[in-house]
Parts: sequence; structure tokens; C-alpha cells
Amino acid sequence: MLNYSPPVDDMAFVLFDVFDAEAEWARMPAFGNVDRSLALAVLGEAGKLASEAMAPLYQSADAEGAQWHDGDVTAPSGFADAFRALAEGGWFGVSGNPRFGGQGLPKALTGLVEEMFWAANSNLYLYGALTTGAATCINAHGDEDAKARYLPSLYAGKWTGAMALTEAHAGTDLGLMRTRAVPEGQHYLLSGTKVFITSGEHDLAENIVHLVLAKLPDAPAGTGGISLFIVPKFLPDGRRNRFSSGSIEHKMGIRGSATSVINYDDATGYLVGEAHKGLRCMFTMMNHARVSVGIQGLGLADLAYQNAATYARERLQGRAPSGPKNPDAAADSLLVHPDVRRMLLTQRAFAEGGRAFAALVGLMLDQAESATDPAERDTAQRFVDLLTPVVKAFLTDRGTECALMAQQVFGGHGYIVDHGVEQIVRDVRITQIYEGANGIQALDFAGRKVLRDGGQTLRAFLDRCRADAVPDEFREPLGAALDTTERVARYLLAGAARNPDLPGASSSDFLELAGLGIYAWLWAKMAAAAPNDDRGASKVAVARFFYAKLLPKTEALAQSIVNGADPVMALPESQF
Amino acid sequence: MLNYSPPVDDMAFVLFDVFDAEAEWARMPAFGNVDRSLALAVLGEAGKLASEAMAPLYQSADAEGAQWHDGDVTAPSGFADAFRALAEGGWFGVSGNPRFGGQGLPKALTGLVEEMFWAANSNLYLYGALTTGAATCINAHGDEDAKARYLPSLYAGKWTGAMALTEAHAGTDLGLMRTRAVPEGQHYLLSGTKVFITSGEHDLAENIVHLVLAKLPDAPAGTGGISLFIVPKFLPDGRRNRFSSGSIEHKMGIRGSATSVINYDDATGYLVGEAHKGLRCMFTMMNHARVSVGIQGLGLADLAYQNAATYARERLQGRAPSGPKNPDAAADSLLVHPDVRRMLLTQRAFAEGGRAFAALVGLMLDQAESATDPAERDTAQRFVDLLTPVVKAFLTDRGTECALMAQQVFGGHGYIVDHGVEQIVRDVRITQIYEGANGIQALDFAGRKVLRDGGQTLRAFLDRCRADAVPDEFREPLGAALDTTERVARYLLAGAARNPDLPGASSSDFLELAGLGIYAWLWAKMAAAAPNDDRGASKVAVARFFYAKLLPKTEALAQSIVNGADPVMALPESQF
Repeated sequence: MLNYSPPVDDMAFVLFDVFDAEAEWARMPAFGNVDRSLALAVLGEAGKLASEAMAPLYQSADAEGAQWHDGDVTAPSGFADAFRALAEGGWFGVSGNPRFGGQGLPKALTGLVEEMFWAANSNLYLYGALTTGAATCINAHGDEDAKARYLPSLYAGKWTGAMALTEAHAGTDLGLMRTRAVPEGQHYLLSGTKVFITSGEHDLAENIVHLVLAKLPDAPAGTGGISLFIVPKFLPDGRRNRFSSGSIEHKMGIRGSATSVINYDDATGYLVGEAHKGLRCMFTMMNHARVSVGIQGLGLADLAYQNAATYARERLQGRAPSGPKNPDAAADSLLVHPDVRRMLLTQRAFAEGGRAFAALVGLMLDQAESATDPAERDTAQRFVDLLTPVVKAFLTDRGTECALMAQQVFGGHGYIVDHGVEQIVRDVRITQIYEGANGIQALDFAGRKVLRDGGQTLRAFLDRCRADAVPDEFREPLGAALDTTERVARYLLAGAARNPDLPGASSSDFLELAGLGIYAWLWAKMAAAAPNDDRGASKVAVARFFYAKLLPKTEALAQSIVNGADPVMALPESQF
Repeated sequence: MLNYSPPVDDMAFVLFDVFDAEAEWARMPAFGNVDRSLALAVLGEAGKLASEAMAPLYQSADAEGAQWHDGDVTAPSGFADAFRALAEGGWFGVSGNPRFGGQGLPKALTGLVEEMFWAANSNLYLYGALTTGAATCINAHGDEDAKARYLPSLYAGKWTGAMALTEAHAGTDLGLMRTRAVPEGQHYLLSGTKVFITSGEHDLAENIVHLVLAKLPDAPAGTGGISLFIVPKFLPDGRRNRFSSGSIEHKMGIRGSATSVINYDDATGYLVGEAHKGLRCMFTMMNHARVSVGIQGLGLADLAYQNAATYARERLQGRAPSGPKNPDAAADSLLVHPDVRRMLLTQRAFAEGGRAFAALVGLMLDQAESATDPAERDTAQRFVDLLTPVVKAFLTDRGTECALMAQQVFGGHGYIVDHGVEQIVRDVRITQIYEGANGIQALDFAGRKVLRDGGQTLRAFLDRCRADAVPDEFREPLGAALDTTERVARYLLAGAARNPDLPGASSSDFLELAGLGIYAWLWAKMAAAAPNDDRGASKVAVARFFYAKLLPKTEALAQSIVNGADPVMALPESQF
């Protein structure tokens, strides 16, 4: 059986000791009332809900799965009550617009709240996770009527959100989209089939608000001809809209979450934003979801670590290489084995580093929206744009890596369903795929976010990292890691003009390199902020592990990148 | 739906063009009759069986699973016929002792045959995979009676083998074993419970021959007090022996394979080899199984690659960064995207590199057993001992990595059960865990195989690698990779005496470093042997990819190792 302990103390450390969030928020009028004690109360309540109401349903939801019957979808047993607790606790409106019933709390806080919900029960949270994204999109691009009609019920979790982009033949290539929207009076009639629609149909909410991409009759070809529509399951007059779930997918993991094929059959939809400019609006929702999915990877990494550490502490097997540590027992604990420690420390370095990264990006989201200085807002938004694909891909790649290592710590028991850790592996795997596969994130990072502005934003961010005082022992390797990232960016800038395949051939390595550099900065900051006690000493110990054992990969990644695109492109298509 | 094409051409390339197996075998009287055409016929027949009889049952076996009812175990539908085809084709006796009905063919050939069986249907092959291991153990350590009684039926696949080591509380730590054997006349009565017994009970064979580790009443404590017993399901007089399957495990993957808890309840057993020296005998079977499991990782990597490559070729999505490659269609194939190529080429570099490694170790096994020169036999055996943990761990770690990358190429479709690639991920994962988890392999490699003889065998093997002429472009990086491996071995030799935790803290990195160095050598050899045609050009292209994109990791691994054990050991147990 898996257990989950909400890491509220570590969250407080990151928010207040590492980033001084209290002072940050105090500078923003929107958050004038948010102090440490309010934040801790919010995190504490969320943690209680996560560990007491959500976590106990995690393994049973996988065994039972979501059920489809003739278009109706039933969530696993117990989900209805737990989801009601989430909704009634206001957890879908934490950062919502206060004019429409949201609580207007900082996004840095929401991110950490989400970490606990993802960790405790990703299957359950998936029924609501797109609700805040849909609300964010409607709040940013909808008119006042749409905001008034949808936001209060979404924030209250009475209604949930869904995002309908993908079509079976097209995947990432949205330009190939076939779903059509025909004007009819003040609204539109949508027809087409969308796949992989998380929570597109289920029985946990009174209404489901689909945000759907489709093409108008006069749409130009390609992605510049896509419009965004609100398509609710129940129309304002109470009638059932004309769409339905054709089936749900049988998946590797997140089996308690219902992933529908949705058939729109002259479904009534309402245009959001301008015609043909829907992709830009949808990106508001996608970027929100990408950060959230990154945090899902982090939450599952921490869940995996916690359970592997407990197993390693309690399992007595073998003896320490340096002689018995527990001579009165038949064997020592697994923690005496250096290789077991290596796996646990790797998980911990990535989980705690990821938490700091999530808090950082959350604070930047707050600054981008609520800082009083426009220049500060602008810089923060540019950093958020730069880092969003890194949060999505680096945290989820590390999430899978950590879950696999946790499973390895369990040995043969890790492969058995009862222990639950294999479910974490199956569940976390989707985070690398959905919301834009990680290869797409890497392309977005290298291409749109770094090369397009000549590396300016990246350099500005690296300079910000360099500006912090860090403990002596980390200064030189941190500087080297940041310099390597910048050097490689220059190499890509110089080479991409001559060889259009270069960014794509290097992008996954480049994103990982940047991620390691950022974590090096975050670990140095955490070591600097660590209190003078056992807990603080542990932070420094994990920071040293990160620098000694994980950071060296940066040079290998840089070398692989500067070896260029030719080795990737040389093989003719016919020879694959 | 998954497809599997037996890579017989590439196997022939590795055996005959890279390693000149025909000449090697010609030097050994035992294989005087084995030439290229015989080997190709064997591989061709095995490939036909794999692709036509085994592969079609792979996905259905996962969906159905093995079934347990009141101690009886039923294999998935269709397995009985396919297993009979394997048995009647003589595929469990390919390398068996000809005096007892085996075909006496080289192990290099058996290894490649096994690759195809593992790739086509690991779930099915698991019912027979331990049969050859059990036969090898009985052939090496059993008396003439045991050989005559068991080998012919094992080689014929009428009976199958099972290996019973693990107990639930003990895992790797065999010294904690509780199963007891009490003498009774000419045999022994065994009592105890063993877990994770692959094919310990099933309905595909007339008899199941368990090789069981247990302690005699006068056994000294620890692993020096363990004895090995043959415990057949049906005794020579036809009576059912007193053991049974208490349950089968519900597992992440290999769900068509039945993994039993076996309760021995005064079961009749026959001692193999000397009392208290059973672990040494069992190691014959374990080492055999370790090489085989490594090859399972290779087979599944190739299965994953083949299907991902097909998908990437056929799926039209997006456009090449350098402009449309397929302008008449709505989109280009996935193969135009450099990041997709990176994933496919990584899989291919590891799968084809793994095949060369498997062939190499197979030839060394042949030399160790059948070379006429005792010194050559001895050297070959030392190399086999050195490389066995690398084959087991490096091929299976790469197997999982490749399966995950193949799944990533499929995007969202890769997460859906129907496409089958997610099953490969779930199935290959066990290869890193069973037959000694890969952390144990790494310890075995660093400790027993390298440090114990002062690094002598490793140096001898590296010198053998250095002795080959390779194409100019690879000479320097190959030399550097081999030198790095040797340098790190010296560091570990010097440091291990002072710090007993050092080998364990470095062993996983060290094994991976050695594996990359060996693959660098193998890829250089393959490039050197590549024919002057499209196929040969592809070999060179993949070799260049390996050198440019994968080999750079060696320096990072070396750096991580020489950063020592302290960062791994510093955190107190209470702080995990």
C-alpha cells in the first residue's frame, strides 16, 4: 500500500526561506492580504484533503478503472465524495478572479497545492485539473457574459473543464484539423471527432465545459485558421448539447481517469476571442496546463520517493560494505547499500529541486500578472514563457526517471501490483506525452523561446541566476553549468541559420542541459537558505549529491549537442 | 497491432562479417559441422516460428493473463500449441549435450535464437526459458543418473525448468533463507515457501523440474550453508510431489507468464552437487539466465524499435524544418523530425550494438567450453564472467530506455493499450529486476569481477578491444572511452581499500561506462565490417550517431564516479 505525507514543511522552506515569497507578495496590491500564516493554512488544508480523502482512493481507482456505458462515463468508486470535497473546499478557485467567485490567491501557492493533489491521486485530480485551465482561458479571452456565465461554476467545481484539440490523424499537427464550425445566429454548430479528451465526459459534475478548436467555413489553411469555442455539455437553457463520448481509451495508466473520444454532431458552440485566432487563446489554457502537468511529474516523483524511502528504511536485507550497522538483527536496512542511496538521493534531488522550480515559476506567474512595475511584469512574463516548456518536460522526464528508480528500490516487489509503485510508473508516464509531448516542449524551448529572440531572454535569465550569492563550494560548478548553457545556446544560434535541422537535432539535450543548470542554481540557493539544524544539514547533503553525481551530465549533453545535426540526419528514410 | 520481423540478416552480419564465427567454430571440434548455411537455416527456422507462431499471441496473452485456480495454473489461449511447436522443433535443446538428446550447437547461435523468441513473445517464452538453464545446471553439476533422467525430457521441452531461490522476506540476501531440507533415505524432504517462481506451475508441460535452494539441518549460517535440490512436480514413480502454487502474482507486465508463490510441504528433492555448496551450482543456472535475460532486453528493444520505425515512416504529421519533403501530401512523415530520428537512432544503436554484444559473449561461451587450447578456454571463461553482469544490466537498462523512446515516438497512441508498445514497456521493465536486480549486477561487476583480481581481467579485455583495427574516424574516441574505463577502474582499485562504500556508490555508473565503451568498440568493428552497399552505409551512419550522440556520456559517468562516495553516504539514515 502506498502512503503519502504532504511535504508542507518543505513547501514553506522553498516559498519563504528560499524565495521570500511573503515579501514578493507584499509588493503586489493583489496579494496584500497573503502572508505566511495564510499560506501555511492553505497548504495545510490542501495536504489534509490530499492525504486523507484523495490518497486512499488511488490504487482502488486503478484496479476499477473508469467505466463507459452507452455514452455515459462513471468515475471509480469513492471519487464522487472526494471530488465534492475538492469542489466545496474551493480548490478549483484558489487563484481565480475574485470578481467571479475566485479567491485570488497567488499562483505560487496554487502550484504547490496542485503538487499535493497530483501526488495523492492523479486519477482523481484529472477530473478537475483542466477546470482551472478552462477558467484561466475564459478569464483571459472571454467576454463579460462568458465570464459571468462560466467562471463562478467552474471555480466552485460544480462544472468542470475539458480541452479538445487533438484529432486521431493529426496529433501535434493542428493544421490538419478537420472539425468544422458553421455559424448559426449568435452561435456556431460544431461537427467532428476529437480524441484523447481527458474528462470530456464523466459523472462528477453538473456540467462539462469543453473548449474546442475548430475551423470556420472561411478559415485559411493551417494553424492560422483555427478558432476556439466554448461547447458546454448542457446549454444555458438546460438542453443537452449535441456531443457525446463515443468510447473511452484503455490505457497504460491513469486508468481511473476517463479519456474520451468525443463526437460533436452539430454541437452548439460559442466563439471565444476572434475568429481564426483561437490557437493563441488556447495557448493560454495549454500553457497553464503545461505548468500543471510538470507539477504532476513532480508530485508523482515525490510520492515515489516517499514510498521507496520508507521501504528502504524498513526492509532488512544484506549488510553494509563497511560492516554490520544493525548487528542485533539478521540484516541491515537497505539504506546501508550505497547504490540504494544513490537511487533515493537522485529521486530526492529531482523532487525537491522540482518543487523549488515550481515555486519559482509560480512566483513569476504572480509577478507577470500582479507586479506594479510594467517592466517587472514584462520580464516575469518573458521568463515564464521561456521556462514553461522546461517545467513541463524536465519535471516529467525526471518524474518517470524517479518513479522507475523507486520501483527498482522495491526489487521484485516493485513489479507486483499490490505495492502500488508500479502504478506510479504507469501513471507518471503520461505526463511526458500529453499536453504536448516532451519532444515538442524541447522544440518550443530551443526554437520559439531561445533562438527566436536571439537568446536574449535566456541570457537575461542566466544573469539573474548568476546574480545570487551562493555557498563557496557551489560557485564554480554552478558558474560552469550556466556558462555551458549559454555557450551551447550561442552554438545553436550560429548554426541554426545554416542548418534548419540543428535545433531539432539538439533540442531534447538542450532542454535537459538547461534544466540541470537551473536545478544547480536552485540547489545552491536551497543550500544557502538551509537552516542550521538536521533538516538544513540534509538540504546541504542533497545539494552536494546533486552537484557531485547529477550535474556532471551537463558536459556530456553539451558535447552531444555540438557534435551537430548530421549524425541525426544522415540515415535515409528508407533505411529506418 | 505490433509486428515483428526476425532480423536474421543483421544476425548473419554480426556472426560472420563482424566476428567470423564460421572460422571460430571451425577451430573447435565440437562444432566442426557448423557452417554458415547451417547457422542461417537455424536462424531462419527460429525466426519463422517467432514471427508466425509466437508473435501473434503476444498482445492477447497480456489481455487474458495467466489464470490461477485452486493451485492449477492455465497459460493464455493459444500458448499450448505454440509451446508444442517450440518443443517439437527442438528449440530447448539447441545447445544441449548431444549425449542426452541435445543438438550441441554453439551458444552464440542459441543466443540469437533466444533474441527472436524473447522479442516475439516474452510471455510465452518464459514458460520455457528456464528449461535450458536448468538443463545447463544439471549437465554441469548433476550425476549421470540425474542427467539421464532429466536432460532428454528438458531438451525435448516435454518437461520445463524452474528456479526457486527467492523468499519473500529475503530477496537478494540468500543468507536469510528459511527453506529447509531434511534427509530421508536417498533423498530429502523440503519445506518452505519460495516467491517469484517463473513457470513454477503451469499447464504446458508434462512435468516441471524445480531447482530449489534450501538449508540442511547441519547447515552453517549464511550463504555458505545452502544446498541445491532437484524437486520435480512428478516423481519418477509418477506420483505428484508435495508442493503447489499458492497463488500467482498480479504484475505490471509479463502478465501472460505465471509467477507463482510455491509452497513446498515435505516435497521430495534430490541433492545436486555437494551439500552446502549449492549456491555455486545454482550460479551456473543464474549466469546462464542472466545472459538470457540481457538478451530479452535486447529482443524487446528491437521489437520496440521496429514498430516505432514503422509508425514514424507511415504517420504523416508536420513538415521538415528544411521545407516539405512530401509536398503532395498534407504532411511529411515523422521521420523528417530530427528529434524523432534521435529517438529511433538511439534505439537502433542500442539494439544492434546489443546484438553484437550478445554474439560476442555467445562466442566466448563457446570458446570457454569448446576451444582446444586450455589457455584460450580460461581466458574466454574469465571474459564471460567479467561480461555477464554487463550483458544482464546494460542490455536490460537500454531495453527499457529503448521501449520508452519507442512509446514516445507513438505520442498519445503509445499510451493506448491497443497499439501494444505500452506492453513492451511494461514487459521489458522486469528484465532490470529479475535474475538479480541491475544494482546487484553492477556490484558484481565492480566488486567480484573487476576489483577482486586487481583489474587484471578488465585490462586484458580492454587490451583485446584495443588490438582491433578500426576506421580512422573512430580510433581516437574509442581509445578515449576505453582509457576512461581503465582509469576509473584504477581509481576504484585505489579507493576501495580505504573506503568500502566506494564500489557500491559508483558501481551503476561504472557498469554503464564500461557498457558504453564496449559498444563503442563493437560499433567501430561493425563499421569496419560493413559491406559497401546501402545496408553497410546505414551501419556506418548508426555508428557515427552512437559516437556523436551517445558516447559523450562516458566522461560524465567518469566524473560522477571520481566525485567519490561521500556525497552518497553523508545523509543520515533518519533523514531519508
